[in-house]
Amino acid sequence: MPTRAYAATAAKGALSPFEFEPGPIGPGQVDVAVSHCGICHSDLSMLDNDWGMTQYPLVPGHEAVGTVRAVGAGVTTHKPGDRVGLGWFSHSCLTCRPCMSGDHNLCATAEQTIVGRHGAFADTVRAHAEWVVPLPEGLDPATAGPLFCGGITAFNPFVQFDVRPTHRVGVVGIGGLGHLAVQFAAKWGCEVFAFSSNPEKADEAKRLGAHHVVGSKDDAALGKLAGKLDFMLVTVNVALNWPAYVAALAPRGRLHFVGAVLEPVPVAVFPMLTGQKSLSGSPLGSPVTTADLLAFCARHKIGPVTETFPLSKVNDALAHLRAGKARYRIVLANDLPA
Amino acid sequence: MPTRAYAATAAKGALSPFEFEPGPIGPGQVDVAVSHCGICHSDLSMLDNDWGMTQYPLVPGHEAVGTVRAVGAGVTTHKPGDRVGLGWFSHSCLTCRPCMSGDHNLCATAEQTIVGRHGAFADTVRAHAEWVVPLPEGLDPATAGPLFCGGITAFNPFVQFDVRPTHRVGVVGIGGLGHLAVQFAAKWGCEVFAFSSNPEKADEAKRLGAHHVVGSKDDAALGKLAGKLDFMLVTVNVALNWPAYVAALAPRGRLHFVGAVLEPVPVAVFPMLTGQKSLSGSPLGSPVTTADLLAFCARHKIGPVTETFPLSKVNDALAHLRAGKARYRIVLANDLPA
Repeated sequence: MPTRAYAATAAKGALSPFEFEPGPIGPGQVDVAVSHCGICHSDLSMLDNDWGMTQYPLVPGHEAVGTVRAVGAGVTTHKPGDRVGLGWFSHSCLTCRPCMSGDHNLCATAEQTIVGRHGAFADTVRAHAEWVVPLPEGLDPATAGPLFCGGITAFNPFVQFDVRPTHRVGVVGIGGLGHLAVQFAAKWGCEVFAFSSNPEKADEAKRLGAHHVVGSKDDAALGKLAGKLDFMLVTVNVALNWPAYVAALAPRGRLHFVGAVLEPVPVAVFPMLTGQKSLSGSPLGSPVTTADLLAFCARHKIGPVTETFPLSKVNDALAHLRAGKARYRIVLANDLPA
Repeated sequence: MPTRAYAATAAKGALSPFEFEPGPIGPGQVDVAVSHCGICHSDLSMLDNDWGMTQYPLVPGHEAVGTVRAVGAGVTTHKPGDRVGLGWFSHSCLTCRPCMSGDHNLCATAEQTIVGRHGAFADTVRAHAEWVVPLPEGLDPATAGPLFCGGITAFNPFVQFDVRPTHRVGVVGIGGLGHLAVQFAAKWGCEVFAFSSNPEKADEAKRLGAHHVVGSKDDAALGKLAGKLDFMLVTVNVALNWPAYVAALAPRGRLHFVGAVLEPVPVAVFPMLTGQKSLSGSPLGSPVTTADLLAFCARHKIGPVTETFPLSKVNDALAHLRAGKARYRIVLANDLPA
C-alpha cells in the first residue's frame, strides 16, 4: 500500500500530494499512522536546501504523533495501536560508544527523519523502534508533536547540564523552543528570565511561567543582570550582544546554545576564566530523555501552544511559519481520506 | 621591623632592594617568613603593567613557601613555625555568595597578593589566614612554591569539571602550567595527550606521564584526533587553530582555558551543538582545592620541575623567564641575610 504524503520537488517549491511505495517493513522498524505532525524551522531549512543535504522529492515532517500501524521482525517494544511519537532522528546504530552510553542523539551515523528519507507530512512514517517513543496518558496527540523535536531540544540541556531548581535560568528567544523552555524552567523550580526582542510577547512569557521579561537587545537591561544568571538557554539563531550575555552569567554560569547561530560567537577568554563560565551546545536528546520529557509534561500539564492547520493546507501553514507569525508552534492534522 | 624585599619602581624596570614598614599585623592576618618563591608569568605581566593595574614600587611574588612568623588576633588555624604556602590570592571576604559556596577564588572582592600590595620577593609576606595553606609532609619547600599559583590553576579544572580517570585528556602547552597538568592527568588515571609547538619537549612530556605527544600547530596530527578527547586544558596564551581543537573533542568534550588568551576565540556554534561540546575557563582554585592539590602531589610524589636562583639574582631569573628558557618553573631562594 503506497504512503500518501505531501512533498516538494525542488528547493523552495510548494508541496503537493505525493505517493510512494515504502516497501516491506524491515527488522526493527515501526510504521506509525500519523494523526498529527508539528512543523519545525528545520523543515523550512530542509525544504530550502539551506544545509545542502536535501534530496527531492522531499516529504518534510519530523514531529509526528500517531499510533503504531505495524512492526517489523524482532520489535518487542511496540505493538499496533500504541500511541507514539517520532522526532528528528529515526535510527541510531545502538552499538557505537555514544549509543552504548545512552547518547543515541550523538550517534555519528544516526538517520535523520527527513534526510535522505521521507518524513511525516504523510499518512504513515517509518522509523526504527528505538526512536519511536510512547506517548503517555495525559498528553493530547493534537498538540504533543512539537515536543518530539522543539521540546526535547529545549528540555535536554536541563538534564545534561545539571540545571537545578535553585538556579536563575534565562531563556533567550520566545518562539517555538523558547516558549517551551520557559515552561520547563518554571516547572523545574527555577527563577525564570525570558529574553525577547518583541515586547508583545511579555505577557505570554509571564503566563507561561517567566518571572521576569527582558529585552534581548536591551543592553542597559542586560547590564543590570551582570553576574546573575546560572544558566542561559539560547534558542535564537541570530547574533546578539554575546559579551553582554556572558557578563550576565553568575560565577560558574553557562551560556548554552540550541539554536544554530550561523555567525561564530567571539568568546573573550578572560571573562570566561575569571568567572569560571562555560559556553556549550547540544542537539535534541536521547530516547530516554525524550520519555522523561513526556512524563514531565504530562505530570505538570504543560506543552506547546499550538495553531492547527489541516495537512491539506500545508502550504498555508508553511507560509504562516515563514512570516514569523506562528504562536508558537504549528501542528498539521492529517485530513487525508481514510 | 621593616620588610626587606626586591621591588620595581617603574614598568619594565629592574628590581632593586627595597624596604617597607608593614605596620602591625591585623586581625585574621598571618605573616609568612618566605624561604622560597616561584616566579609566574603573571609577575612579568604585573611588572610590565600589561593589565594596567600595577602600583609602583611593586614587590612581585605570589608563589611563596615558608613558615608562619606571626599571627594576628583571632587566627586559630595557624601558629608560628607552621609550614605554609601562599598563592595569587591573599584575602577573600568569606561572606559573599561564592565564598559561602566554597569558591573563594571567585570572590569579586578578593585581594590579590601583588595587586595594590606587596608580594613575596621578600623576607616576609602578609596575607589573611584563609589563603595561607599548610604545606603537607612530603613536599619540599624548595620546589613546592609553583603549586600555589601555576599548580592550582592547572589542577582546579580536574576537580571543577569532573574529569574522570577514564577520560582522554589533552594538555595544550608544555610550560609552567602544562608540565604540571600532564603529571596531574597521568596520576588522575587518564590517557594523556601533550600538545606542544616545541618538538624538543616531547621526551620530557613523556617522562612526566604523557602517553602521546602531538604538535600543537600540526593540523594533520590534530585532524587524526577528531572526536577523541574528552577534556583539553589550554595552558597557552596564544591563538591556535581552535576549530581543529573543538573538532578533536569527543562528544560531550570540553575545551578549557586557564591561559589568558588575548584574542577572542571564534566559536562556531554548530559543531558545539552537534557534539554537545563545551568551552570554558577557570581561575586558580579555592583554598580547599589547593589543600587537595598539595595532598595529591605529596601522595603521588609529583611536583614542579624547577630551576633555582637566589633572590639576590632575581633580575637574572626574570630575564631567563622572559627569554622563554625556564624549564619549567623558576624558584627564588631567599638569600637575604638573616
